This record gives sequence, structure tokens and C-alpha cells, in this order.
Amino acid sequence: MAKFLSIFTMRNLLVLSLALNLSLIMRVFFDGEKQGFFFSVEQRGRSMAEDKEAHATQRTLQSVSSSSGQEGMEKVINLDHGDPTMYEKYWMMMGERTTVVIPGWHSMSYFSDVKNLCWFLEPEFAKQVFRLHRAVGNAVTEGCHIVVGTGSSQLILAALFALSPKDGSEPMSVVSTAPYYSSYPVMSNHLKSGLYVWAGDARSFNKEGPYIELVTSPNNPDGFVRHSMVNRTGGILVHDLAYYWPQYTPISSPADHDLTLFTVSKATGHAGTRIGWALVKDAEVAKKMVKFIELNTIGVSRDSQLRAAKILEVMTNTTEIGSSDSGESFFEISYHLMAERWRLLQAAVNNSSMFSLPDFAPGFCHFLQQQTQPQPAFAWLKCEDDAVEDCESFLKGHKILTRGGRSFGVSPKYVRISMLDRDINFSLFLKRLSIIQS
Amino acid sequence: MAKFLSIFTMRNLLVLSLALNLSLIMRVFFDGEKQGFFFSVEQRGRSMAEDKEAHATQRTLQSVSSSSGQEGMEKVINLDHGDPTMYEKYWMMMGERTTVVIPGWHSMSYFSDVKNLCWFLEPEFAKQVFRLHRAVGNAVTEGCHIVVGTGSSQLILAALFALSPKDGSEPMSVVSTAPYYSSYPVMSNHLKSGLYVWAGDARSFNKEGPYIELVTSPNNPDGFVRHSMVNRTGGILVHDLAYYWPQYTPISSPADHDLTLFTVSKATGHAGTRIGWALVKDAEVAKKMVKFIELNTIGVSRDSQLRAAKILEVMTNTTEIGSSDSGESFFEISYHLMAERWRLLQAAVNNSSMFSLPDFAPGFCHFLQQQTQPQPAFAWLKCEDDAVEDCESFLKGHKILTRGGRSFGVSPKYVRISMLDRDINFSLFLKRLSIIQS
Repeated sequence: MAKFLSIFTMRNLLVLSLALNLSLIMRVFFDGEKQGFFFSVEQRGRSMAEDKEAHATQRTLQSVSSSSGQEGMEKVINLDHGDPTMYEKYWMMMGERTTVVIPGWHSMSYFSDVKNLCWFLEPEFAKQVFRLHRAVGNAVTEGCHIVVGTGSSQLILAALFALSPKDGSEPMSVVSTAPYYSSYPVMSNHLKSGLYVWAGDARSFNKEGPYIELVTSPNNPDGFVRHSMVNRTGGILVHDLAYYWPQYTPISSPADHDLTLFTVSKATGHAGTRIGWALVKDAEVAKKMVKFIELNTIGVSRDSQLRAAKILEVMTNTTEIGSSDSGESFFEISYHLMAERWRLLQAAVNNSSMFSLPDFAPGFCHFLQQQTQPQPAFAWLKCEDDAVEDCESFLKGHKILTRGGRSFGVSPKYVRISMLDRDINFSLFLKRLSIIQS
Repeated sequence: MAKFLSIFTMRNLLVLSLALNLSLIMRVFFDGEKQGFFFSVEQRGRSMAEDKEAHATQRTLQSVSSSSGQEGMEKVINLDHGDPTMYEKYWMMMGERTTVVIPGWHSMSYFSDVKNLCWFLEPEFAKQVFRLHRAVGNAVTEGCHIVVGTGSSQLILAALFALSPKDGSEPMSVVSTAPYYSSYPVMSNHLKSGLYVWAGDARSFNKEGPYIELVTSPNNPDGFVRHSMVNRTGGILVHDLAYYWPQYTPISSPADHDLTLFTVSKATGHAGTRIGWALVKDAEVAKKMVKFIELNTIGVSRDSQLRAAKILEVMTNTTEIGSSDSGESFFEISYHLMAERWRLLQAAVNNSSMFSLPDFAPGFCHFLQQQTQPQPAFAWLKCEDDAVEDCESFLKGHKILTRGGRSFGVSPKYVRISMLDRDINFSLFLKRLSIIQS
């Protein structure tokens, strides 16, 4: 197993390194000669904003390849959000295969598929979602309706709308087990809805009557596998499986729930694309979710669905038999990157008794066909030092921005730290953690 | 003036016709030889869904160029929605100029511009919005913050959230003058918000205390220019100027309000892209709108903003001096298309006393530098026949789907009919209207 890992990591690193070389050579050509690999693409309507971003991304990649010296020690590292920029490198390696080209006269109508219950769902996106779940084995899709959303946030709100009775005498309670996703309370309450209201930690919830329980598994922020925690019947469960992918957690079996949410941002890293999807068994619930999205945004960007479809397509292609031999499998490469990051973080934290991390039990991953460790998208770090009451403030003092435990309904001794930032920031974070502990 | 119009229309038609010929030649090449003008684009990641749509659009265009014979008389014509597919032809004529190319590793981060109050606003999109308003002269942008939204629906909701006090003893009243946009009541009430509530027709509103008035100008559904109608102070105005563009109404002066909404779908016809924008004077209001969009969808698709930026850029380019000589000006071509449709509709309706249309006063359009007639995106048709109480049902009986007056807070003798559908459907609609009246 150790041998397999070391061989695989070497091969991956080689491929990544070659890709980096290629991109730098292209950069030289592009800057020096205004021509090269991407030049024909450049001519086709690449906007100034894209140019700027290409430059920024190139800068980041160049920084990564150089040593992260002392010059970065004054920089504020923002690991508060789960911005999945770590994945940029993989998609750059894949080059033009995931490039989308959208002529000006395409996808102009509001309607993607008038015959579908979800009339704004692009058929190609739906096809690629089904294909991906079949390849990964993380969700049962048979008999499910897909409802596409502008990210999974919109789908959570759509689910709350769909699952709450319209004529209830009081708002439906919404609960989740602490530590819960920090946005759940404010998403539930910001409009003072008469349909639903945040009712706090599922463990201590004891109000009579129906309720909605949001089950996030693996959990954001702490990464543990979760099940319903309210100890009685009458609840409606919404499963947020944004992180149920092989790079984060062992895929133990295909999820098979009434209402399950996924999002492109955590699966592929394309957070800026704002695409999520719900697998919904009950057609009436799906229809109400669609109604919510109609009232909220009159559908979901077709451009983004087409882009997401292309990315999912390539991602699934790389998981197929034979692809892993070429060292291109998205999930295998991402799994090894996450494993390496977690190894480095654990080594840094184990150096002292100042911080601690959760203890995870390994499990068999049916996708990778081996025992794997959970390696969440967030590190749920605890300040063990008695002198530190507020870990977020403490780390902020060291120019590391994180999100404190209170936002997740627990002690401020905890913080959530993104593990998905670019290499340069992750390296700086580790370095700074070592300095704090020394 | 008449001479100018006839010359201009001829030139436009010639350009359109040449574009159509070109596209048909391309089609022949593409089907026969699997090569041609678009072939290199095809190779670059055009998805199956796009292929299907290209075929569908080509079919539509081919149908338009053939006569709309009796074979179409059984077809249901759906003019209920304002789906702006009429504009496909123009953007096809513009060919590759508005094609966007997005590599897989672009725009992955949640963040577009961390230094902007609206952190998810693409700088290039903002730049093109400012440029377009300057070119058209329909809005003052100096001193305004842009808040981008997933269509203007999301921005209406964001405005209601931003403008309602969080600790009010009762929900803020939301009003608009009847006939009002049919979605306003349900958008205001679907979540039973404690922040705001629909309070009906602005004309009859007489409740004490603050209120939000939605002013849609030109108005959806009836096309008239609108101002605030509540006859007292204390109101906060939201100006929905989705249709304040030269193809629909004379541009009398640059709008200069506290909070003004626009949307790509009505300006350019790209409804499937789901992009709108708000011009907001008060930074605190803009921040609250941004907060709403964070909670609702964690920002707005970056892909769609980049696509919209490219389309607005080309649109503005075509309005610049010299461009109109080439017969490419988006607004001039669209103005003439709408003028022609309205001329045909008025001729069809004036044939009998069964239906009537609103009477509009002409005005001087500072953009087109001439007197122009309002020619709204919707026809607000009244059934004058005493035997017809419900015009929507009556037309449905003739396989024409429209939206009845009750949805807009007025008599069912009225219906709203989209004027922006593809040529084939508009022609069928006119034909059927003639048959009904004969």
C-alpha cells in the first residue's frame, strides 16, 4: 500500500510538473511573442477580465514553483472561506479539454427543456450528473428528479420552501447537529419567514411537531460522517452531501435519500460557476423546488450548466478504466493532494500540544478500492492552550483568517480552516503554524 | 423620415438576408462535409447540448425563411412568457464576435474582485455596463455602485431585503401600480416574510407608514412610461427599467434614481444567461443587497458575467459612430424589427373592432435622434367583444397562450402577449388573429 502510494504520488507529481513546465513555456511564448498554444483561443473572444485572471493564476502558479520565502510572512492568509482554488492546477493540466465555447446566439431562451419537470435543466448537464454518480458510486440516481440550482445554497432554500407547509400555524423548525454549517441559521432566518425558522442544534431539539433536519455528511466544518440526530420520527431530512467525494472521504456506499444535495464547487472546484444539483425522489417536492427557483432567479444560468456539464464529462472520462494509468484521474490526483496536505498539517500540529485535530477512523472506499482516511476540505482545529479562549482571534493575530467555533454553534476554542486554497497559501499557513508553536 | 426608415429597413433586411444565406451555406458545409466556418470552434469543446441547440436554431431560421403555411395552424403558440428569442437572428448575424471561450481553469474562485463592495462582480462586466449606459444615455452611472444579480428577479428580492427595516413591528408594504408585473405579488409573499408584504395597487394604497413602491418603466405589461403613483412621501422607490432601451421606448433622458434595475434578458435577449444589474446610490443599501445575494446564491455565476460582458461590449461597439453605417447597430436593427412587428400587429387589430391596443404618444429619442413611438416588448391586448369576458381563455381556445389581466391586478378582458418570440411564431400569431377576426 505504501509502495503503491509512493509510486502513484511520484507519477502524479511528474505529470503536474510537466504541466507546469508546459504552462510556463506557453507563458514565455505568450509574453514574448504574443503567440503560442492558447493564441488561437485568445483571438476568439477572450475578454480582458479573463486575461487578467490568466495572469493572476499564472503568477500564483509561478509563486508556487518558487520557494515560499520570508517575503510572504507579512501576508494575510485568508482561510475563512472554502474557496477551492487548489483545483486550478489540475484543470490547467487538462488544458483545452474542458474549454467551453459559447457563440453569442446560443442558449438565449429561458427554457432548457420544456418537457422536463425542471424546465431550466440543461439535458446535457443532467446526463453528466447521472454519469458521474454512476462512475463514482456515491449516489443512487434511479428514480430521482434532478433539480439544478445556482449553487447548493439556492437548493437548500428551495428545499426549505418545498418542505414547509404553506398553511402551518407556525413556522417549521429547521435543525442541524452542532457544529453545523455556519450559514444554516442565517439562511433560515434572514427573511423572517413564516414558513420555517432556525431551531438550533438537532441534538437538543425537543419541540413537538414536524421539523426539517439538515444532515451534512461529511460534515462542514468538522469532516465527520453524519446521520440524523433527532431522536424521534416526524422529521424531514435534507442530505447535504457536498463533500461526499473520494478526495475527502471513503465512498462507503451509494447514498440513497429522499432529497440529496451536491455542488460543483466542492466536487470539481468550480465555485465561480455557481452550479449545484438536488436528487429528489418525490416529484411534488421537486416541483415546489422548481417553483422556488422560478420566483427567486427564473431558472439557472444555461451557460454555467453547459460549462459544468463539460467539466463533469471530462472528470468522469478520467475515472474510467485505463484513465488512471495515464495519471489523469481527477479523483485519484485530488485524493493524493489532499492526503499530502493532511499529512503535512498533522505533522505540523503534532509537533506541540498547542493545537489538536479530529481523530478519524479509516474506511473502505469502493471507488478507490482501498482503505482510505477521511481528509476533509476543512481542518477543524482546536486551540488546546488554556490561555487561548478565542482561537479565531488568536490566529488572526498571526495573520491567518479562519472561522471560529461560535459561527458553528460550538466553543470559540475551535476554528474551521480551508484546506483547499492554493499551494502558496497552504505552505505559508503551515510555516506560520510552526512558528506559532515554536 | 419615412424615406429614411424605408432605406434603413431595406439595408437591414439585406444584411439579415445575407447573414441567413451565409448561415445556410455554413449549414450545408457542416452537414455535407463536416467542415466550414464554425468547424474549428466545434472542435474546441462544443458540447452535445450546444450542438442540439444549434440544430434547433438552424431549423427555426430555416422555417422563418420558408413560408409559414397551413401546417402550423394546429401548433400551440406560447406567448405567455417574454422569452426574447427574436434576438437570436441578430446575434447569429454577428457570428463569432460574441463567442466566449472559457478554459477549464478560469474563474474557479468564488471571488471576482475582493476590493469591490460587490465582491462577486466581474470588473469587465462592470466596465461594459458603464460603457453601455454612456453610449445609450438611458441611465446616470456616476456615483453608483453596481450590484450584479442572477437576473433582475434576484435583485428585486435583494432590494426588498435591503430596504425593509430588520426590526420593524410589522412587514414593510410593497406596492406597484396596476397593471403591475404579475410576479411582484408572489415574489413578495411566497416566503411569508416578516420583513415585507405585498400591499397591492399603488393607486389605492393608503396605509400609514413607510412603503416600497416598484416602478416599472416602460411598464410590464402595458408598455406605458411610469412614475411613482403613491400620492405621499415616506416611500422608497425601486425603478425597474428592464425595458428602458431604444428598441422599446424613446430614450427621453438618462434615468437618475436611487435604485435602478436592468437585465440582460430584455436588453440583449440573453435570458438564459441570468444576469441583471442594479445601479445603487447608497453604499449601505448596496451592501445589504450584496449580503442577500451571498445568502441566496453565494454570488453570481462568473461565466455568465463574462459572457454578458462580451455581448454588451459588442453591442456598444455597434452603436458607436460609423457602426450604424454598416447596418450592424443592435439598437437600430432591433428598433426597426420591433417597429415592423408593431405595424403588422396594429394593422391586424385595426381590421375589426374585436380587439384594441393601447394608444401611445410618440417622443423624442435622444439615442436615435428622432421622434419614435413606444413599441413595447409585450402587447397589452383588450378583448372589446362583449361576449368575451376572459380574453386569455378565449385566445387559448385558438391555441394562443397569453397571460390574462387578473395576473396583473386588472380585468380579465386584457391579456399580455410577448412581442419577442421568433419570427415563425409571431407570423403564426398574426395569421391566427386575422382568422379569429374574420
